[in-house]
Amino acid sequence: MTDTETLSLTEIEDLAFRALVKAGTTPENARPLAAATAMTEADGIASHGLAYIPIYAQHVQCGKVDGRAKPTLSRPSAAVIRVDAATGFAHPAIDMGFDALVPMARDLGVGVLAIHNSYNCGVLGVHTRRLAEAGLLGIGFTNAPASIAPAGGKKPVVGTNPISVAAPGTDGSAAVLIDQSASTIAKSEVMKYAREGKSVPEGWVLDADGHPTTDPESGLKGSMVPSGGYKGVGIALMVEMMAATMTGATLGSVASPFSGTAGGPPRTGQFFIAINPEATSDGAYQARLSDLIASFQDQDGARLPGDARRAFRARAEAEGVAVNATLLEKVRALA
Amino acid sequence: MTDTETLSLTEIEDLAFRALVKAGTTPENARPLAAATAMTEADGIASHGLAYIPIYAQHVQCGKVDGRAKPTLSRPSAAVIRVDAATGFAHPAIDMGFDALVPMARDLGVGVLAIHNSYNCGVLGVHTRRLAEAGLLGIGFTNAPASIAPAGGKKPVVGTNPISVAAPGTDGSAAVLIDQSASTIAKSEVMKYAREGKSVPEGWVLDADGHPTTDPESGLKGSMVPSGGYKGVGIALMVEMMAATMTGATLGSVASPFSGTAGGPPRTGQFFIAINPEATSDGAYQARLSDLIASFQDQDGARLPGDARRAFRARAEAEGVAVNATLLEKVRALA
Repeated sequence: MTDTETLSLTEIEDLAFRALVKAGTTPENARPLAAATAMTEADGIASHGLAYIPIYAQHVQCGKVDGRAKPTLSRPSAAVIRVDAATGFAHPAIDMGFDALVPMARDLGVGVLAIHNSYNCGVLGVHTRRLAEAGLLGIGFTNAPASIAPAGGKKPVVGTNPISVAAPGTDGSAAVLIDQSASTIAKSEVMKYAREGKSVPEGWVLDADGHPTTDPESGLKGSMVPSGGYKGVGIALMVEMMAATMTGATLGSVASPFSGTAGGPPRTGQFFIAINPEATSDGAYQARLSDLIASFQDQDGARLPGDARRAFRARAEAEGVAVNATLLEKVRALA
Repeated sequence: MTDTETLSLTEIEDLAFRALVKAGTTPENARPLAAATAMTEADGIASHGLAYIPIYAQHVQCGKVDGRAKPTLSRPSAAVIRVDAATGFAHPAIDMGFDALVPMARDLGVGVLAIHNSYNCGVLGVHTRRLAEAGLLGIGFTNAPASIAPAGGKKPVVGTNPISVAAPGTDGSAAVLIDQSASTIAKSEVMKYAREGKSVPEGWVLDADGHPTTDPESGLKGSMVPSGGYKGVGIALMVEMMAATMTGATLGSVASPFSGTAGGPPRTGQFFIAINPEATSDGAYQARLSDLIASFQDQDGARLPGDARRAFRARAEAEGVAVNATLLEKVRALA
């Protein structure tokens, strides 16, 4: 049994904030990243919560991310917002973009936000959910260093590239939240097995020659198995086109790694689409969504994307989150 | 060896047009459907080309689709076009919508088209490609009668629901064309095996109790296997939300079947997003896209989505298309 200590969401956010600022992040940049860290722990995704704070702190110190960056915004067309993250954290760039995107999309019916010179944005659904909380359907794309090979090829060309869709409900929350990577399994899982010296199940990774392997180290030097074969490559390619070619960000095939200290800023990108459902559906949206959700929830054992995170979050808000004690000690030392 | 006869694309379009008009379709409605039929044959997708003309003719005659429908257009917000397909064919509704969508998306940077009261739109990529040919990145969604069950459930709630993305190249064509359904295999393939009395491979379908089966009839009464498990369900749900809840169209779980004559019009929907890449990327788009395409094409044997259709189409434009003789006889009898 792992030792844990239970923290409130406010305590998690405060701890993350102090560690980030101490590492050299400005308070303005640390605030949205600390808030997302608490939200991610609330969602039950411990792998991307406080566990990332030591990595973020290290990346500020080695220059992989500029903790003092000031993102800049432009509006090249009436319905398009562009943000240059200036090699800083993605979170303040997304915040700045959303402040302009939300009223624009409400007014015009749709708007897009293209972010370049950016960094790992953490859990993508934490961002799209905020668009749903503003009453908009949000679609998000973010690219990552390449780890998936083309169908018929063996050299990685696109990242595990997640896509997320958040659909607004009637109560100011996301009634449905889809958030999934293009690979069979998250790369962070393979890295965890590698650290622990364990074999991974078949179907997770391929070696550098494109052959199946259960050795996580060979897999990390090779490629990740795309979910559903060539269709997973298709999704990863779609995300790459949105997050990199459509934003002018760096392609995953040439981006520096998200892990380790080498290579400088990855300069990857994010793309968000926000749509006003009332405009596109002439008011039919909520009734249709409610019927769609019921068709899932009426079946015993059927899972609706987003329900697990919502349940975890409700518990976390009431009771706090149990954090691994070793990790907590590490983060506290940084704060 | 199957008997075939080679037809030019113009001959295919003309034949399809005459059969549709003779069945009771107005020339205005028959024209875009006939053009899409020729384009689909040009792409090498025989299953959705002339093979569908007898079904379309039958559906006009039984009232599953209104061949004389007049779609109507509205613009509820500055960047949103809505089209009521009036239970007619999807193709004239899409044509009417694109005429308004393309200049709007060029001007504002992005625009969306929401279509309801619609019908099977054939191959989705035939439509998104037209947006790319107009210099816009096109994303398309279309829903279908339910055939995929939720993860953990067994009753179908969403269709095999394809998604398509077409990315404009420098030469006025789609440089990349992704077009894929959310199931492991197209439902039309399972129907073909059922007609031929053959077993399907494992991993294509599940029976009504959610168990794997190789009997296509049991599969058609059960559900289609989603590509990549729960992630395929996620993609199908995303498409359902875009094509039905966001448009006010009928959900796949209650829509009448696309095949057979029973149940009246399916009233399903389509949703398209068109984005101006020059606006979102500040002019960086084409260079990034070119590098991304090269990363695929530089690998021996690697497949880039869209390349197979482009190669087939070039050959079809030069040499025509070999059409199954029995099918041709059937369509000619209708014309």
